[in-house]
Amino acid sequence: MPTFSELLAASWRKSNSLLCVGLDPNSENLPPTVRGNPTPLFAFNREIINATAPWVCAFKPQIAHYAAVGAESQLQQTIEYIKKNYPAIPVILDAKRGDIGATAQKYAHEAFVRYQADAVTVNPYLGGDSLTPFLEYRDKEGADKGVFILCRTSNPGSGDLQELRDGGVSVAHHVATLAATKWNKNGNVGLVVGATWHKEVGAIRRLVGDMPLLIPGIGAQGGDLGAVVDNGLDAAGDGMLINVSRGIMAAAFKDGVWNEDKGRDFAEAAERAAAEFCGEINRMRSKEMQTPAARKMRCALLD
Amino acid sequence: MPTFSELLAASWRKSNSLLCVGLDPNSENLPPTVRGNPTPLFAFNREIINATAPWVCAFKPQIAHYAAVGAESQLQQTIEYIKKNYPAIPVILDAKRGDIGATAQKYAHEAFVRYQADAVTVNPYLGGDSLTPFLEYRDKEGADKGVFILCRTSNPGSGDLQELRDGGVSVAHHVATLAATKWNKNGNVGLVVGATWHKEVGAIRRLVGDMPLLIPGIGAQGGDLGAVVDNGLDAAGDGMLINVSRGIMAAAFKDGVWNEDKGRDFAEAAERAAAEFCGEINRMRSKEMQTPAARKMRCALLD
Repeated sequence: MPTFSELLAASWRKSNSLLCVGLDPNSENLPPTVRGNPTPLFAFNREIINATAPWVCAFKPQIAHYAAVGAESQLQQTIEYIKKNYPAIPVILDAKRGDIGATAQKYAHEAFVRYQADAVTVNPYLGGDSLTPFLEYRDKEGADKGVFILCRTSNPGSGDLQELRDGGVSVAHHVATLAATKWNKNGNVGLVVGATWHKEVGAIRRLVGDMPLLIPGIGAQGGDLGAVVDNGLDAAGDGMLINVSRGIMAAAFKDGVWNEDKGRDFAEAAERAAAEFCGEINRMRSKEMQTPAARKMRCALLD
Repeated sequence: MPTFSELLAASWRKSNSLLCVGLDPNSENLPPTVRGNPTPLFAFNREIINATAPWVCAFKPQIAHYAAVGAESQLQQTIEYIKKNYPAIPVILDAKRGDIGATAQKYAHEAFVRYQADAVTVNPYLGGDSLTPFLEYRDKEGADKGVFILCRTSNPGSGDLQELRDGGVSVAHHVATLAATKWNKNGNVGLVVGATWHKEVGAIRRLVGDMPLLIPGIGAQGGDLGAVVDNGLDAAGDGMLINVSRGIMAAAFKDGVWNEDKGRDFAEAAERAAAEFCGEINRMRSKEMQTPAARKMRCALLD
């Protein structure tokens, strides 16, 4: 069994993409062609998955969109569908779990056994021991799972706690350093860093070396894609999962609702958007990989 | 409609109890009499609820214990059962949610619409704007909901982030101050403070005045009940929800498994344990309410 780190590296290589597609279907605002379906969230996701799979390195379903409406079974169907049809593409369950002891073990079971996710997002506020059940989880075949720890989130208020400073170092940077050292004994840790703070993407990259960064905040939230790529690549020119949810799922949106004409072609619009994001990231990445600064940083990271 | 704060105050008054019972049934370790039931978690909870209701000010189901095994419907049944049979007892959904924007709204919908909880626990790491959908939620009748924000958690590693210090003030105390000011515009905020840090219970009580404190860590985790009561009462001699989960649910445990004889009477054992915890808390509270230090603190809080 490959480790999560190997699975992700293979996916980056095979897909030639740093794009991660978020699967966050809004049950109250689905395109016309899936509304009557008995499992509309899954029907919607299946179309998005088939349309965007050639352009992605990972899929990231956000659990709240299913839990709010009692659609856990459709989340299960979605992940099963990806595993069956696109087994090389890792699935990150975005759940931002955080609890202790036996409860944290139950959450790890939820992510890795019930939903069969390859990785999960977690919240570090409760400290290292609260992360252990995720970090040390092994499935029946002995494979580990990826653990993406919230570090600097993309929202405007993220600095309320994450920018408090102890010894001149922000809480977010303390998390980055802990994640790269004490918490990463098994080599399966990644960090969540919002694209809206692109200087932080660079600062955190320098703190953690070649650790996968899951980057939300591109698209609807307005993060600067060029600046993120400039700052976030690892030594091999990969190292990021740049997530886009609404910008792809809802590419056929107009003024907040499905354009009833274009909504019929929502998958086509999603594919076009995914291809564009993937291509744009790759153009910036190939440019970035050729700058003297980038070469210097890569040399430093490879040291 | 009463506010959450009024609902809780009425429950403290009516129950004359600060005990909160956690409903965290372990699907792999249920007493013999409910194992064959088609909805065993609910069947177990129903017995625990009926046995302990006279001794509690609140119930607190922990969602991971249901989510890990796909038993969301039994969590719904459990909360419906409490609302129907014990409408004066608030239900706190322990979910420790933390996310942003539209996703945080989905989580608020999950807690307050799907599960009909009166309050929820949340994680502050993402900052104030991530809490807004919970803080400002109103149901169809315009009633608010309680929001218990993690402040200082009971686990050994809680200090990893919560004890980092900015300007000499710990992150946990920054959370307490934000919770008592900017985040409490609607008067519906409480804090989670672990009983294992009883000095922190006192320090946080002084920072936040008469704010409800949800206190886990008594029982299996070994928090000192007397020290918690000494430190945590509000000016009226209430102010705490002292949670016990395993110490009551599993009162008929022996060496980690159900004692097959006593397991048949698990509800009776739970009632006895709940009555003892409630009584012990009240003995300490009545003693504490009579000390000069307590009178002085109450005067300070009432100012």
